[in-house]
Amino acid sequence: MSVYLQDIPLPEAKARFDQALEKAGLTGRLGAEEIPLDENALGRVLAQPVWAAISSPHYHAAAMDGFALRAADSEGATQTRPLALELGAQAHYVDTGDLLPEGTDAVIPIEQVEPLDPDGNPAPQPRQPHAIRIRAAVPPWSYVRPMGEDMVATELILPEGHVLRPVDLGAIAGSGHSCLTVARRPRVAILPTGSELVPIGQPVVPGDIIEYNSLMLAAQVRTWGGEVTRFPIIPDDYDQIKSGVLEAARQHDLILLNAGSSAGAEDYSARVVEELGKLLVHGVAVRPGHPVILGIISDSEGRKVPVIGVPGYPVSTALTGEIFVEPLLARWLGRRPVQPITVQAELTRKVTSPPGDDDYMRVAVGRVGDRLLAAPLSRGAGVITSLVRADGLALLPRGSQGQPAGSTVTVQLYCAPEDLERTIFAIGSHDMTLDLLAQFLAQRERRLASANVGSLGGLLALQRGEAHVAGSHLLDPETGEYNLSYIARYLPEVPVKLIGLVGRQQGLMVRKGNPKGITSLADLAREGIRYVNRQRGAGTRVLLDYRLGKLGISGESIPGYEQEEYTHLGVAAAVASGRADCGLGITAAARALELDFIPLFDERYDLVIPLVHYHSPLLAPLLDLLHGEELRTAIEALPGYDTQPLGVEIAELP
Amino acid sequence: MSVYLQDIPLPEAKARFDQALEKAGLTGRLGAEEIPLDENALGRVLAQPVWAAISSPHYHAAAMDGFALRAADSEGATQTRPLALELGAQAHYVDTGDLLPEGTDAVIPIEQVEPLDPDGNPAPQPRQPHAIRIRAAVPPWSYVRPMGEDMVATELILPEGHVLRPVDLGAIAGSGHSCLTVARRPRVAILPTGSELVPIGQPVVPGDIIEYNSLMLAAQVRTWGGEVTRFPIIPDDYDQIKSGVLEAARQHDLILLNAGSSAGAEDYSARVVEELGKLLVHGVAVRPGHPVILGIISDSEGRKVPVIGVPGYPVSTALTGEIFVEPLLARWLGRRPVQPITVQAELTRKVTSPPGDDDYMRVAVGRVGDRLLAAPLSRGAGVITSLVRADGLALLPRGSQGQPAGSTVTVQLYCAPEDLERTIFAIGSHDMTLDLLAQFLAQRERRLASANVGSLGGLLALQRGEAHVAGSHLLDPETGEYNLSYIARYLPEVPVKLIGLVGRQQGLMVRKGNPKGITSLADLAREGIRYVNRQRGAGTRVLLDYRLGKLGISGESIPGYEQEEYTHLGVAAAVASGRADCGLGITAAARALELDFIPLFDERYDLVIPLVHYHSPLLAPLLDLLHGEELRTAIEALPGYDTQPLGVEIAELP
Repeated sequence: MSVYLQDIPLPEAKARFDQALEKAGLTGRLGAEEIPLDENALGRVLAQPVWAAISSPHYHAAAMDGFALRAADSEGATQTRPLALELGAQAHYVDTGDLLPEGTDAVIPIEQVEPLDPDGNPAPQPRQPHAIRIRAAVPPWSYVRPMGEDMVATELILPEGHVLRPVDLGAIAGSGHSCLTVARRPRVAILPTGSELVPIGQPVVPGDIIEYNSLMLAAQVRTWGGEVTRFPIIPDDYDQIKSGVLEAARQHDLILLNAGSSAGAEDYSARVVEELGKLLVHGVAVRPGHPVILGIISDSEGRKVPVIGVPGYPVSTALTGEIFVEPLLARWLGRRPVQPITVQAELTRKVTSPPGDDDYMRVAVGRVGDRLLAAPLSRGAGVITSLVRADGLALLPRGSQGQPAGSTVTVQLYCAPEDLERTIFAIGSHDMTLDLLAQFLAQRERRLASANVGSLGGLLALQRGEAHVAGSHLLDPETGEYNLSYIARYLPEVPVKLIGLVGRQQGLMVRKGNPKGITSLADLAREGIRYVNRQRGAGTRVLLDYRLGKLGISGESIPGYEQEEYTHLGVAAAVASGRADCGLGITAAARALELDFIPLFDERYDLVIPLVHYHSPLLAPLLDLLHGEELRTAIEALPGYDTQPLGVEIAELP
Repeated sequence: MSVYLQDIPLPEAKARFDQALEKAGLTGRLGAEEIPLDENALGRVLAQPVWAAISSPHYHAAAMDGFALRAADSEGATQTRPLALELGAQAHYVDTGDLLPEGTDAVIPIEQVEPLDPDGNPAPQPRQPHAIRIRAAVPPWSYVRPMGEDMVATELILPEGHVLRPVDLGAIAGSGHSCLTVARRPRVAILPTGSELVPIGQPVVPGDIIEYNSLMLAAQVRTWGGEVTRFPIIPDDYDQIKSGVLEAARQHDLILLNAGSSAGAEDYSARVVEELGKLLVHGVAVRPGHPVILGIISDSEGRKVPVIGVPGYPVSTALTGEIFVEPLLARWLGRRPVQPITVQAELTRKVTSPPGDDDYMRVAVGRVGDRLLAAPLSRGAGVITSLVRADGLALLPRGSQGQPAGSTVTVQLYCAPEDLERTIFAIGSHDMTLDLLAQFLAQRERRLASANVGSLGGLLALQRGEAHVAGSHLLDPETGEYNLSYIARYLPEVPVKLIGLVGRQQGLMVRKGNPKGITSLADLAREGIRYVNRQRGAGTRVLLDYRLGKLGISGESIPGYEQEEYTHLGVAAAVASGRADCGLGITAAARALELDFIPLFDERYDLVIPLVHYHSPLLAPLLDLLHGEELRTAIEALPGYDTQPLGVEIAELP
């Protein structure tokens, strides 16, 4: 049996699936069930409209504590010519909510009457007087909630398809119902497949992949109103996958087969679907997500069950859920599909995109000055943190080859638009204290979105007005000073403050035990040593080049000099994994990955903050942290840092 | 013990509560617990930041199915001078996700190689060839996901206080964790009190109030991350309330006492709080909601437990939850409080407000043309449907006496801003077919927000550009025609279509069996008959006045002529309840409330639709319904309607 991976445009793939679902009678609500009206009804979808069974109030009710009377009996009462009404005959004490006694049509609040005893003196028990004296006429229906004020029997309270909120439950109860007809929850089976998968919590060896896609899918399905069964991991074995699918089909409305949906040697999903039913689509021109399978199989009794083959890279998995699973569940539940809030934002950098694909790009969104900016995050389908950190998705549609920097993109938000106003864009050099800062800022209603593009990249972002803060540790070889001359050169027209963050050590990270016996920069040119570098514009790269120049070593003579990483931890990871023997970086990164560290130089790492942001409410919590003790204590717990510069104003420029 | 109801401004009330909570050590997170990383973690709040325990990938992984090799070995390969690499020695087959074999640093996808057998011919098994032929050099790290591409050990994955979403669960699993430390859910006890209360589902007699506030509060608390115990209804009895509160205090973090929070004879809540602890606030200047109680009591072991006395009117109950309970739960969970999305909208009519109160007004919001309009809904604290139908709340702040029509208000939305774009504003006369229409429109992603202000009110709303549609049945006494002359007079400059909706009968609604023997309009002037009228501008009112004029009866001679209701059902409810003996209205309303109906006149009810909206996508589903069979069939099932006019274009004006 041959398996091809196609490139079907998304609308066509959806149309094929829809047609097949329609033919199988699977486009409408799956079914309804009656449930009691209690807090478990929250979030359920009404399968029938709710019409009021009774009116509310279902009787004329006193709206205040006071005395019910006939308005006509109060006519003629004035300040100077009060009227007395006898209790029991003309006036009746009522509490709020009480039924208006027969013959009365108004209530006068207790504060507005003079209670009298039988002798005409003030009564000792204001709620049980002999009579009341009133000094104004009472209009009919004063302080009365007439029957039906809230709802009248037969009135529409809520339409079919409504997703129930707390107040809805109250209104339904008030309209005389004690149970509800809601859509049956679709039952979804999730089958993780793959011999390389290991369950969460089990130790891993190289080659093992922690199976968490079924967890994400399960949580998605639950969020969208479905019920979930997570099957145990099935190895890459045609027969086992086939019997798993057949078992799942017996008790579920939808099967999510993750993954094996590509066209590799051990990708059996398409073949299983083809054998058990109809393979409608294998390969959709959407990115991330290409190897999506859509099909409908028959269970042992001939019941039709849709199968979605979900690609294995985690970003693809999550997006396949959003693109294919959510709309199907919405339809089966009879509710509107989830419609994300969108905003228009300006791209911070050029992006390219394969013209044949609908390309979903993850972006961080934040406001810098008057501009709402969208900063593209990692495009890798395996980078789940790009989804975690994304404020939304920008679609680069089929037919587009990408978009230039500064162009406008529509972002489908994952967060509330208000959340974007609390994002601090920190672009520039990376330091691990930024993670600490992010954690502390999160407790103060701020989100630090950091992009690691090196010190110079940060200054350039400030120049373009695309960041609130830039971390920088650029050494001026002439003066031995940090950052000042670079700011003067790159930001001549942007007034900024230069604030110290930390002093730190730069040195060579090497594997535990230093197996290659590296002791100084001079060793980098030695035979058999592979270096891993930072990217151009990074402060660490400037430092390296400066020091190499002093030693008369050229970059080209160093094997691996052209291998560039964007963070200290990236360099550390390259060394830890054996991809390189050493790299220049900071103590904390070496310690984090249990590497040895050969300290070489001290340097200062500063924050560059434009004045216009320095005094903004957005950055106030950041400045508090820089000047407080909490952050200092946390940084001092990290190895290799000196907190003496923390919060010191080094200069205001220009 | 004396009980006063004060009028403490909201900020001061909150400050008093906060100070007392702080003194009791109740301002921070209540506690944390470790839970397994599964789909039940969804929505929980991180009590600790998550730092990556391992890198991801935790090894160098093949990013494609293909052959791993050393990039250096491929140097020199070109289209015309291919290179052959021997399997096992120089090339190794890998599936996506496989560990890169020792010594290799790149992958070439299987599609890009020529598999060879030992004789140099194409190999029959492309994944198990003897060698592969390549025609281009492979750059190092091609098609490799390097260790740490997604996350590097020690990196911050998610900050403390984060509310977990599906992708977060995946990322946490991928970073090497199998359990999570999350905030303990606050335990909230809800105690409904009141001798007039009956549980949901029990038959009611006049004076009974269906107890659904505890259901709304329970659903709110659950939505906000708390756990709930709903206590059985406690009658208005000081000792029983006191022992209920003491019992609740033993196992809960917060007690919601609903209601008895006012200052009436049977309002014991404040006194109970005062006896068991400290009554901090009794009465907050917020509307709806005045009689709020804030206090802190001690349980039998001296543990401090806050008590919130929640007012009894359902709108007050729900808003007290939002204003006082949600922020407290947020703080105890360590997450940010819920922050509603806000929009600016234009008030459709003048509103007044007590200057001493923060007044939360429920509004329907929709876009008519270019203007985003906020139409105030019922202000009554007992009208829960006003919250159900609200798109949001507009705060009329303390110090303001109200706002004029056309002024801008900030609306805190209950829905997504996108939802506002699907709201159809129908202002004008009421007909029960509008409820049917609303139900059918809800299935078509439209929401019909109807305001019942009478036919003339609808035309005036169209004149002001504040509605998409107006329902109208205005009889011209001169011509016997419906609506045409009124449109000519009131909308001379607004091009509209007049579309028929239904023919219907107008007649007198009377109580079952017609106890007062009413047979015609002439009876309205009879001794002992109380009439209930429609408001000025209502088509039914125009009809009445026209017919009364013909009979030579003046309105003033009819008892109850000045009693005005805004809908047919309102009139029917007045008759059903005995507040009036008869009222003019339509068949369906009489039937709905099981009244007798004395048919008097036939009339036509039309929809007036400005051309500019008639052709808009917003109204397309409405027009489809008017021209289709579904709505016709549903209307025909109602008594007293003639569907012959349905969808007929009567005129285009001017």
